[in-house]
Amino acid sequence: MATTRSGVLRVLGIDPGLTRCGVGVVDVARDRSATLVHVGVVRSAPTMPIEERLATIAAGLRAVIDAHDPQVVAVERVFAQHNRQTVMGTAQASGIALLVAGERGLPATTHTPTEVKAAITGYGAADKRQVQTMVARILRLDELPQPADAADALALALCHAWRGGVRPSGAVGASALTPAQRAWADAERVARR
Amino acid sequence: MATTRSGVLRVLGIDPGLTRCGVGVVDVARDRSATLVHVGVVRSAPTMPIEERLATIAAGLRAVIDAHDPQVVAVERVFAQHNRQTVMGTAQASGIALLVAGERGLPATTHTPTEVKAAITGYGAADKRQVQTMVARILRLDELPQPADAADALALALCHAWRGGVRPSGAVGASALTPAQRAWADAERVARR
Repeated sequence: MATTRSGVLRVLGIDPGLTRCGVGVVDVARDRSATLVHVGVVRSAPTMPIEERLATIAAGLRAVIDAHDPQVVAVERVFAQHNRQTVMGTAQASGIALLVAGERGLPATTHTPTEVKAAITGYGAADKRQVQTMVARILRLDELPQPADAADALALALCHAWRGGVRPSGAVGASALTPAQRAWADAERVARR
Repeated sequence: MATTRSGVLRVLGIDPGLTRCGVGVVDVARDRSATLVHVGVVRSAPTMPIEERLATIAAGLRAVIDAHDPQVVAVERVFAQHNRQTVMGTAQASGIALLVAGERGLPATTHTPTEVKAAITGYGAADKRQVQTMVARILRLDELPQPADAADALALALCHAWRGGVRPSGAVGASALTPAQRAWADAERVARR
């Protein structure tokens, strides 16, 4: 995954949902520092027919991509064992998120909630408040990102960049890493085996 | 749901799937007789990234809509309790099917496999072969529609039309029904209570 724009990777995180679809865009530098670009929620009314709800979500996600031009998209992975009442709608919304990325030629990756929590707080079973607090700290925000879906989207984007999305660009290679970055990269490679 | 084109309703049925997405287009007349317009399968390779697979499916479904101009879309309803390995991909593909309908301004409806089997064979637990056989008979085809996903898509489209999609157009009203049609419509109303 190439990092252009002076080694900064711009990631769009999407927390899929039919009623509220969280979206967060962050710029992550090679030293892992991160900056908030955009955070928000794409909504669709539960009273609308499902096909119109999905079209509304697709239009909202395309507008975010057009406005902020991310290089990669990270989407929360949905599991069948979750609440059956809502899981199908969430799965459909995640399909829309992946589709919109694919149609714009953007690579997309899914991450589990546990991966995201572990990346952001160091603890895979962290609660929503802990994730929100850490996201605010990492991005140097004065307030917690609201609502929780928006904070989750930012956490997803950060998780994606930190789990290997940010790499030194081709010509420079691994030698451009600081000793601390190299140690981190090595530890990540080992952890992925 | 208006029936234009001399009272004929053109229905696109979609049996959602990531690897094979069945599509079937039928014209159903007020007397419930049906004609095959198109049947096929939209495929995406399991080796492709998920975002490209979903984009491939969306493009294939849009091509079918452009070529055959259906008035309504019927999509098989996906349940969380199915095979967990594939249910998320199926749910995402169903989201794409509904989205494509919504973006073209076409009303979309979902039907359960049991509803479809009951509508086509009179028996909600019918097997795939029985459904294929009845679809071929209803559409006066010389061979069974292949593969099964394509037959399921045709069955969905027929089910949708028969379960209330085909109605006499406004000004004519219920009096335009033949006695047999009226009896059928009454029986359906009772069954839906």
